[in-house]
Amino acid sequence: MSSAATTLYGGVETGGTWCVCAVGTGPDGIVAQETFPTGAPDPTLERIVAFFARGPRPEAIGIGSFGPVDLDPQSPDWGSVTTTPKPGWRHTPVATTLRDALGIPVAFDTDVNAAAIGEHRWGAGRGLPSLVYLTVGTGIGAGVLVDGRPVHGLIHPEVGHLRIPHDRGRDPFDGACPVHGDCWEGLASGVAIARRWGAPADELPDDHPAWAQEAEYVALGLLSIVSVVSPHRLIVGGGVMERAGMVAAVAKMLRELNGGYLDSRMLGDEVERYVVAPELGDRAGVLGAIALAHDAS
Amino acid sequence: MSSAATTLYGGVETGGTWCVCAVGTGPDGIVAQETFPTGAPDPTLERIVAFFARGPRPEAIGIGSFGPVDLDPQSPDWGSVTTTPKPGWRHTPVATTLRDALGIPVAFDTDVNAAAIGEHRWGAGRGLPSLVYLTVGTGIGAGVLVDGRPVHGLIHPEVGHLRIPHDRGRDPFDGACPVHGDCWEGLASGVAIARRWGAPADELPDDHPAWAQEAEYVALGLLSIVSVVSPHRLIVGGGVMERAGMVAAVAKMLRELNGGYLDSRMLGDEVERYVVAPELGDRAGVLGAIALAHDAS
Repeated sequence: MSSAATTLYGGVETGGTWCVCAVGTGPDGIVAQETFPTGAPDPTLERIVAFFARGPRPEAIGIGSFGPVDLDPQSPDWGSVTTTPKPGWRHTPVATTLRDALGIPVAFDTDVNAAAIGEHRWGAGRGLPSLVYLTVGTGIGAGVLVDGRPVHGLIHPEVGHLRIPHDRGRDPFDGACPVHGDCWEGLASGVAIARRWGAPADELPDDHPAWAQEAEYVALGLLSIVSVVSPHRLIVGGGVMERAGMVAAVAKMLRELNGGYLDSRMLGDEVERYVVAPELGDRAGVLGAIALAHDAS
Repeated sequence: MSSAATTLYGGVETGGTWCVCAVGTGPDGIVAQETFPTGAPDPTLERIVAFFARGPRPEAIGIGSFGPVDLDPQSPDWGSVTTTPKPGWRHTPVATTLRDALGIPVAFDTDVNAAAIGEHRWGAGRGLPSLVYLTVGTGIGAGVLVDGRPVHGLIHPEVGHLRIPHDRGRDPFDGACPVHGDCWEGLASGVAIARRWGAPADELPDDHPAWAQEAEYVALGLLSIVSVVSPHRLIVGGGVMERAGMVAAVAKMLRELNGGYLDSRMLGDEVERYVVAPELGDRAGVLGAIALAHDAS
């Protein structure tokens, strides 16, 4: 066994839009990295294999995949993407394909659990017993750590499809989710914003009414998360949350929604320490995948 | 140390309406039990002390208390009820009062975490890695077990105050929660039903429209729970859920709300094995408190 300081691990984040591959030891020790669009499964997985085959070779790789995925080690479909609406990806055996092609151990979790692990190991969640990493981008997803470990359970957390109040008088938009219409993701994802307002979120000016509405919707879903699993911190990332002031606006809204009921400074005066941006930025997922590989080997 | 079979433990469930005290080894080994209304804090705690002082003396006692409570072992307020609206009970040091009066170790958790532990040890959750115990009675609360252990986190799960969709066209009732109005508990608790319809739930006939509405509201909140923590089973108890057919109606509604998105038989054909009634009935809390005492000593 080589020493922790010199052993290289691989990380792959197969996101809905981008794939990120890296080899290294952690945030300050990445020796190779590549990012490319997530295309059809076969060419995408081939490109991942080619990246790791080029070297330097990692000891093991961790994969954080968009979901839903099968995380049950007893299941014949362990390591697969399952019922995704993403074209071509239904029932794609991501983990076993990479393991068989590369001949090294692979660890597998959701992209958001990987990001939660990354932030816990090296970012905004260091030292905390529990946390939730939320991403609001093309879709909405969350990774949940309890006692420092990712929650799987029956399937895995899949927060995007919980329901939040939707006042059609104020917001007549029917919602963008092909399955549920106005679930959380259907109302508050980047896709929902683009469809409601006719322009992508990043083209909307700071004073557009979309932003106050978005802060309220995101906070309503976060309130469900706080009510169910009471994490020690909420780390809120993803493209939509990169707009200046949004994380603070969501924090303020969460405090208002709590209305003083849950008696913690974290939901009161110090809510901006409770709801925070990721410290690893968009590297949280791939770095968490490296941590997964490290822990599994 | 005496053997597990003969060691007696005490359990106390201090519920919002009733207190249940018991001494024994488990569901088939209760040697003393008493139930009385939860009154003001001082006489209620005195009555609990008197029950255990009479004997047989337990080795330790476990307490499952209505919340919110302080579960942080580092806090000077550990073991207290904190910000409850229940008259007189704010900042009542339940656990330390009983410990000091009885001179034996005490373990402390929420009433619903205790019920979750009881069902996990001896009831509908035996052998499962994770579960949620939901009660719909005077209020709404849930205990959450992950890896067999109760989730605490920043405070503890407090599901009653998450928000669910509320269509005021179909249900113009403003909600019964003094803090949030139409939060989950504000729409679907026993208090909400009684206030909306002008009669307590148990006086409404089986064909009253209240029941279909109630099944939908309860399922909406359960969907949030499933989305956030993905438990292996949902155990649904409390007085309102004792109406014949309600647990099955909630299960069916949860399946509809999922719409086939989460790909598990447990949210499909076998949903009535996923959403189930407690096996310990209204003894889940006090038996779970006995299990808490056992585990702590």
